[in-house]
Amino acid sequence: MTAQQSFTIAGGGPVGSLLAILLARHGYNVGLYEGRPDSRKTSIYQGKSINIALSDRGWRSLERIGNVGATKDDAIAMYRRTIHNEDGSITHQPYGKDGQAIWSVSRGGINEQLLDMADEEPNIQTYFEHRLTDVDFKSAAADFQRNDGESINVQSDFLFGADGANSKVRRLAHNLPRFSYSQTYMPQCYIELTIPAHEDGTHKIEKNALHIWPRKDFMLIALPNPDGSFTCTLFMNYEGDVSFKALRERDAVADFFSRYFADALEYLDNPVEDFMSKTASSLFLVHVYPWSFNNRVGLIGDAAHAIVPFYGQGMNCGFEDCAELNDLVNQFDHDWDRVFPAYEKQRKPNGDAIAELSKRNFVEMSDLAGDARFQLQKKIEAKFSAAFPTLWTPLYSMVTFSPDVPYAEALRVGDEQKEIMDKIMQMPNIEENWDGQAVMDELRKLAAAAFGEKR
Amino acid sequence: MTAQQSFTIAGGGPVGSLLAILLARHGYNVGLYEGRPDSRKTSIYQGKSINIALSDRGWRSLERIGNVGATKDDAIAMYRRTIHNEDGSITHQPYGKDGQAIWSVSRGGINEQLLDMADEEPNIQTYFEHRLTDVDFKSAAADFQRNDGESINVQSDFLFGADGANSKVRRLAHNLPRFSYSQTYMPQCYIELTIPAHEDGTHKIEKNALHIWPRKDFMLIALPNPDGSFTCTLFMNYEGDVSFKALRERDAVADFFSRYFADALEYLDNPVEDFMSKTASSLFLVHVYPWSFNNRVGLIGDAAHAIVPFYGQGMNCGFEDCAELNDLVNQFDHDWDRVFPAYEKQRKPNGDAIAELSKRNFVEMSDLAGDARFQLQKKIEAKFSAAFPTLWTPLYSMVTFSPDVPYAEALRVGDEQKEIMDKIMQMPNIEENWDGQAVMDELRKLAAAAFGEKR
Repeated sequence: MTAQQSFTIAGGGPVGSLLAILLARHGYNVGLYEGRPDSRKTSIYQGKSINIALSDRGWRSLERIGNVGATKDDAIAMYRRTIHNEDGSITHQPYGKDGQAIWSVSRGGINEQLLDMADEEPNIQTYFEHRLTDVDFKSAAADFQRNDGESINVQSDFLFGADGANSKVRRLAHNLPRFSYSQTYMPQCYIELTIPAHEDGTHKIEKNALHIWPRKDFMLIALPNPDGSFTCTLFMNYEGDVSFKALRERDAVADFFSRYFADALEYLDNPVEDFMSKTASSLFLVHVYPWSFNNRVGLIGDAAHAIVPFYGQGMNCGFEDCAELNDLVNQFDHDWDRVFPAYEKQRKPNGDAIAELSKRNFVEMSDLAGDARFQLQKKIEAKFSAAFPTLWTPLYSMVTFSPDVPYAEALRVGDEQKEIMDKIMQMPNIEENWDGQAVMDELRKLAAAAFGEKR
Repeated sequence: MTAQQSFTIAGGGPVGSLLAILLARHGYNVGLYEGRPDSRKTSIYQGKSINIALSDRGWRSLERIGNVGATKDDAIAMYRRTIHNEDGSITHQPYGKDGQAIWSVSRGGINEQLLDMADEEPNIQTYFEHRLTDVDFKSAAADFQRNDGESINVQSDFLFGADGANSKVRRLAHNLPRFSYSQTYMPQCYIELTIPAHEDGTHKIEKNALHIWPRKDFMLIALPNPDGSFTCTLFMNYEGDVSFKALRERDAVADFFSRYFADALEYLDNPVEDFMSKTASSLFLVHVYPWSFNNRVGLIGDAAHAIVPFYGQGMNCGFEDCAELNDLVNQFDHDWDRVFPAYEKQRKPNGDAIAELSKRNFVEMSDLAGDARFQLQKKIEAKFSAAFPTLWTPLYSMVTFSPDVPYAEALRVGDEQKEIMDKIMQMPNIEENWDGQAVMDELRKLAAAAFGEKR
């Protein structure tokens, strides 16, 4: 690298902070610019506890900066899905093999840890309340408006937009020639609800699980927090028969909760009040191409590939972007004319794949999770995978616990597995015979034909 | 309708002009606003003759205003594709049955005819050099900047954006909640070239055909003009081995034409000069949803569904939008709270379908058109369709000559036909046996199973 090369990073969230640390440790001067105030000094979360799922891709990416221990201390392992069926019964679905878990972490907490680490890097300067207003995609210069209204122009050699799902850098790129973009809204919106802790700070429902109340067209989920509470999210259609638009009256909302979430009502903290007072948030997917411009400006994290939360992979994917970019900087010895194209080529198909997988997973969570045949299929897959691990890793495990398998590969293999399992589930009396040798033999035959040679 | 209800139409191209006439004849007051000067008074085309293909959907839609005769007089029937193969040989592919044709019309010419008709409607006011700058999507008010720099605010009850592929109305809608949009660039760009007329005004190559020089990754096409010339379009990748980006040097461009378009070189007017001096234009597809806002503002034509030109359906689809909207105004007796949702519901799937079909057709034109097996498949289809017309209308004919079949239906049936034809083409020695009874019998069996009950 040329001495004193510099980066501007727009966006001081988890991805921007991690990227700043990685680049600084390569010797670059980094200016990290965040539009909002510093959450460590001002309470910007207003008591809201937003938690996200972190799994192997995220942890492995964080290992690049040696931060895993501290973060994992504050995280809660979720070993399984706990399904709260409409009839009041509860079933469990392990996420992976014994000991495998996804982790509930506080978005604010991990962000602050990363910002603390960035503060310790001598060549990172962090600026809060600096709102990006313009980018010169040729020179990587950028304009920011400070909270006192002053505009400043920042010159640097390179710029990354790590500014999230509503990325300003990306929206400015809409005007560039041959920039393809899409922003697609899901039919669902969401609001957050809360299950408070017991008075002694313990959890009211099983702590080490991700709870789902699947109701087909809508669902409630709950992720544990270290303080004993759960952050719950109600996903429901924006419009239609049962929807945020249809449920306007207080009585109707109360009926809705009593009818569909009777067993959750004893835990939830004023869900009807929350429902009435909150505005439902939209969910959307963003696809763009290219992810880099003139080998000077790049997009990373949600700015490049905003996805929906149904696979718990958003931050994992953003961290993986950073980790793989970091490795490409080494591989190409700081030659950014090669790093940018390689980064885009390597990450874009994986961003597309996890977007597709996350979109599909709404159906798995809200509908199939409560479906007996689907649970049977999962059991057959798990049994077969245990017997023939080199032939079959379940899709969820590839995505969540197999960071060596790129998302795009997981999607491709998962689609082939689906075709095979459709055949298996059509075997006569599969409900009775699923545990027998014939099913395993057939599955082995099909799997060997599909994957035996290739893998 | 309420007396004196008014429409603002942004965009005075062919679709905006047709829409204005239709709405005016329903009794609405219409303000038609166009950003460019009036081409009838100022030469804005700079000698450029842009022609487009019009076929049955377009003609039938124009019949709503009784304009077909005059336009068809200026149009040139193209009964077939004339394929100029790389080895210098020429083959012909009829577009449909005897007498069926697609028509080469001048975009400027049809636009001026429609503007002339609009001028005759007492309740249409047309304003040129009024550039749209803002839209209030709740009230349908709009701001226009006049060519003297003055801004005017126009109040009306409803507004349509008929402002083309780069629609300002649509781009302003990006900021509305839950507006999904995509703009996707094709790998190909294009430049226009010319084959001039003989000195006596006759055509140098067959007049009543669309000429294609298919070269797989790129192609040249030519459409006839009434003055004896042809407007040619060279479609080629933006970047890559053989691309606009790669072909920078004059000698390389001359070699390119000599190597791939030797037989066209004797007709083309200075293609190397044209190639060197012109900037290649991009091709992109636009998808958006919704197409209407608050039952006050709508999108129509390319503004709602910009597509690529490879199926010759862009203007046909835009005219069909107008015709179906017109019929919905009658059906719902001017109740725009019902017209807008019905228009969007009816047209959006068809806009998506013709976008998909037009994208796919690049491969058909540039690669398959010169492919012997594909031509054989077309011959088998044509023979079967002639024998069993109720069982099989070829996809091209459904799209082009069957305005009663919605685009979405054509796409769906076409995909089923493709599966069937893939099986037929795998029959033993199909090259020798294609004309035999066994092929017809098998095709009849497969087609009857797929379409016999349904249609």
